[in-house]
Amino acid sequence: MSFVALDWGTTALRGALIAEDGRVLDERSAPRGILHLDGASFDEVFEAFTQDWMAVPGSRCLIAGMAGSRQGWVEAPYCACPCGADDIARQVVPVQPGRIDMVPGLVDHQSGVPDVMRGEETQILGAMRLTGLRDGLFVLPGTHNKWARVADGRVTGFRTFMTGEFYALLSQHSILSRTLQADAPLHEAAFLDGVGRARQADSPGLLHLAFGMRALSLFDRLSPAAAASYLSGLLIGEELRAQALEAGTPVVLVGSAALTERYALALDSVGVPAQLLDAQATWAGAYAIWRARQAAG
Amino acid sequence: MSFVALDWGTTALRGALIAEDGRVLDERSAPRGILHLDGASFDEVFEAFTQDWMAVPGSRCLIAGMAGSRQGWVEAPYCACPCGADDIARQVVPVQPGRIDMVPGLVDHQSGVPDVMRGEETQILGAMRLTGLRDGLFVLPGTHNKWARVADGRVTGFRTFMTGEFYALLSQHSILSRTLQADAPLHEAAFLDGVGRARQADSPGLLHLAFGMRALSLFDRLSPAAAASYLSGLLIGEELRAQALEAGTPVVLVGSAALTERYALALDSVGVPAQLLDAQATWAGAYAIWRARQAAG
Repeated sequence: MSFVALDWGTTALRGALIAEDGRVLDERSAPRGILHLDGASFDEVFEAFTQDWMAVPGSRCLIAGMAGSRQGWVEAPYCACPCGADDIARQVVPVQPGRIDMVPGLVDHQSGVPDVMRGEETQILGAMRLTGLRDGLFVLPGTHNKWARVADGRVTGFRTFMTGEFYALLSQHSILSRTLQADAPLHEAAFLDGVGRARQADSPGLLHLAFGMRALSLFDRLSPAAAASYLSGLLIGEELRAQALEAGTPVVLVGSAALTERYALALDSVGVPAQLLDAQATWAGAYAIWRARQAAG
Repeated sequence: MSFVALDWGTTALRGALIAEDGRVLDERSAPRGILHLDGASFDEVFEAFTQDWMAVPGSRCLIAGMAGSRQGWVEAPYCACPCGADDIARQVVPVQPGRIDMVPGLVDHQSGVPDVMRGEETQILGAMRLTGLRDGLFVLPGTHNKWARVADGRVTGFRTFMTGEFYALLSQHSILSRTLQADAPLHEAAFLDGVGRARQADSPGLLHLAFGMRALSLFDRLSPAAAASYLSGLLIGEELRAQALEAGTPVVLVGSAALTERYALALDSVGVPAQLLDAQATWAGAYAIWRARQAAG
């Protein structure tokens, strides 16, 4: 029997009807993230969004994403790393018992400071399924990028980088916004220059390098069209600096083409090849959790 | 004969009437930075602000700060490091010949990317004069912090860190703003915890550590009152990580008490003592340039 999967994030709500064998039968999305319910209840938005899919008696739904946070529909406590599909399946939280379940996010308590994800765990499980990899580094670029290490089919640990949010803040609200053309297409040389400067082990760090963008502009050494790419390169280079990129470890990038291609370019410049996947990974991940639930009975 | 010194920045205009022997005879300020002229010309704002001081025939004025930038009154090209009071005095640019002169900013071309300052050069010269130091590390916290190395009375090089601007962006516009009480007093333990985490040589960097502030809040391990101090500590620790703090090098902090005391606390935690000076250093620096001009005839 088919089931419904939702990725209910902060700004968007995406859904798919998934067949018994994992094929995506139907798919839709709406600008109805948990901060954009426009006065409706979670219940109302859910029923309107899934009406036809859930009309069949006995239909079931699995929800991943921020809808399971404290600010969401029903809080699903974080599942602690290391953690695989079976652990996640065991810890789903019923929203409507026997009908709707909430997928927990992950927490990594292994460094002194906890790190958390919600929704990305499902994409990682999907990326494993789509690539057939059970070991590797899974990178999910976005507002809050996740770098997750996977071993033997389990997420062993991960770290979040606020790269996307920093880029938005700096390019829209900082002094750098004045000398930067935000909608310019990627300027590859400027991007890689930024990556190269920031990823050095002895880098003076982002607080200094970001000001360099302004100084280069002052001396007409960086055009507004190239400046956006340079800043993006600095941020992604700063992110790469923090990674232990071991030769031979497979790297999988999951996200929008615009972002994953940029990360692939940066990784390629340091000799690390990567596989690219899009948001379809979410449905493969939901299917993996679904199967793990069935296997557990 | 006395002279008038102005520090004409982006948001504020400060001025002093300075005696032949360097004493400050009178002082004032107005919210009339170069981006806040409210439709008046530089000329008009200048004459209104200095009217009584400049009324005496033969009165002269020295202006430092962003008024000498491309967006200012008259552009004074940057003076290249290494550079001392005599070089700066030689490169002042007349605004009204024989009456008003503009002090140049400094540029450091010694790394691959240029770095610039305007106004801080005058504070550094003043800090040298007030402390009697001709060698050391001079740190000017603010929106765009400057770390300048001084040897034999000359600024040999410097680096800018956008620490103040990043703090404003993150505490006001980022996801972190939701779990942070911006006006809370300094929470020393949280501040030093942030400094300690960020200043490590193997730090994963600000993009990751900043998200940790959010995760700590989620798990109720950081109160909103402590969170502001923790974030401030992360940023200042990140700045310290980039410095080669050699034992025995005198460190001088110039700026507002609130900021210099915070930096002194961070430096003290790594065993580096510092001397603190306030904005009066500007007038001592203007006097140093004034004297250097006279000496040059």
